[in-house]
Amino acid sequence: MPDVDAGGVRSVQRAVDLLALFDADHHSRSVRGLVDATGLPKTTVVRLVQTLEQAGLLWSRGDGQLVPGAGLLRWAELAQRTWRLPDEALRRLEELSEASRGETVHLYVRQRNARVCVARHEGTRNLRHVVRVGEEMPLWSGAASHVLLSRADRADVVAVAAAAPHEGWGELLWERARRAADDGWSASHGEREPGVSGVAAPVFDRSGRMSAAVALGGPTTRFTDEAVAEFVPPLLATARALTTLDCIGGTA
Amino acid sequence: MPDVDAGGVRSVQRAVDLLALFDADHHSRSVRGLVDATGLPKTTVVRLVQTLEQAGLLWSRGDGQLVPGAGLLRWAELAQRTWRLPDEALRRLEELSEASRGETVHLYVRQRNARVCVARHEGTRNLRHVVRVGEEMPLWSGAASHVLLSRADRADVVAVAAAAPHEGWGELLWERARRAADDGWSASHGEREPGVSGVAAPVFDRSGRMSAAVALGGPTTRFTDEAVAEFVPPLLATARALTTLDCIGGTA
Repeated sequence: MPDVDAGGVRSVQRAVDLLALFDADHHSRSVRGLVDATGLPKTTVVRLVQTLEQAGLLWSRGDGQLVPGAGLLRWAELAQRTWRLPDEALRRLEELSEASRGETVHLYVRQRNARVCVARHEGTRNLRHVVRVGEEMPLWSGAASHVLLSRADRADVVAVAAAAPHEGWGELLWERARRAADDGWSASHGEREPGVSGVAAPVFDRSGRMSAAVALGGPTTRFTDEAVAEFVPPLLATARALTTLDCIGGTA
Repeated sequence: MPDVDAGGVRSVQRAVDLLALFDADHHSRSVRGLVDATGLPKTTVVRLVQTLEQAGLLWSRGDGQLVPGAGLLRWAELAQRTWRLPDEALRRLEELSEASRGETVHLYVRQRNARVCVARHEGTRNLRHVVRVGEEMPLWSGAASHVLLSRADRADVVAVAAAAPHEGWGELLWERARRAADDGWSASHGEREPGVSGVAAPVFDRSGRMSAAVALGGPTTRFTDEAVAEFVPPLLATARALTTLDCIGGTA
């Protein structure tokens, strides 16, 4: 029953997309606000909201505003139990930050055509690169993306690159992913946001599958060729240590 | 299109139910494990898993096990931002625990036919009542349920009571909800679990709608009539303070 299948996928994805409209700037929303934000017909939004309320994922507050539901609290615990790194791994991220004179360290996993930050150690510099845990970044840009795509096939990379607002990005991304595969690390400068640079290396699980990319991020002015050359050895040491700990997505 | 509607609701609910199979005892599961746990056909489980992976709610680890997805990390932040009480409210829960000589305080909101614990202050007694934040409890039992149902109509209460494993529970629950409405608080003894007692009072928002129930829970041996009479004044004071703070489900 392909119709039922498609409907199921679409419903779940729509529900996820609707919840994604609640963020730091929108703690609560009205049905009207959701209609405006989604462009969906009001009847569709009302139906979706009812479904999400029934599932405990949205909650109607007394003032008529909708807020993320208390049912998410259980999922919060689940997610944190799965993704919280053991202390030894967190210490490694901290040491890498220190070895780079205070740049921020992020750990990303691939999730469809995005990379999600699952852990980080925030740097000490005043001008610092900040991605929150749980935040999605596009997979078409950045050193961590080159690394996460370094074992992907060409069609996959080209499909990911289609989201980039640039002509011919598929070829470029494929080339950078190939280089990341050859070198075992990658650097990027201003691919998505001018002035932001990164350098990243792959983390593997015990079966040898790539599980994550560990990355240093900061302003391009501090990520000179000399600095990157200096960052790479401790970055690779951190990636190897995380590989040995085999702790991405919980321990088996 | 009622068919599409029903399909959407069912898909989202099924997805939520499948995620609920991941808990403290099951950090990871195989597709086979999910088939066994749900009793659904393997093809259905595979389709559902693919949908959840696409939505970032499940993640395939290298060892072939499924774990809660990194996409949940974002929702975790959302849920905690919405439901985390301000420090002043948390202090009130702590004070109530002290005033009851160390019983545990829970705050519950209604979610369909359940009540969800959204905050708590764990008591200091060795034998203590523990419900985790995010945990769902049945709405057919307990003092907090009487309170949360004290403004519900009879049909609603009877429908909730249908989940109870007892004959004639609808009448009993309706009567207890009516008494909670009259008294402004309720006590319960062993309604669901022998030896567990509770006493609860309603919290309102600024529009006067009931938003939550604050409850003390502990062993029946400590919840004598004398003790309950002693617990009620500080409980009602806490409920009034939380009403004034108007902080359930985030601030407007």
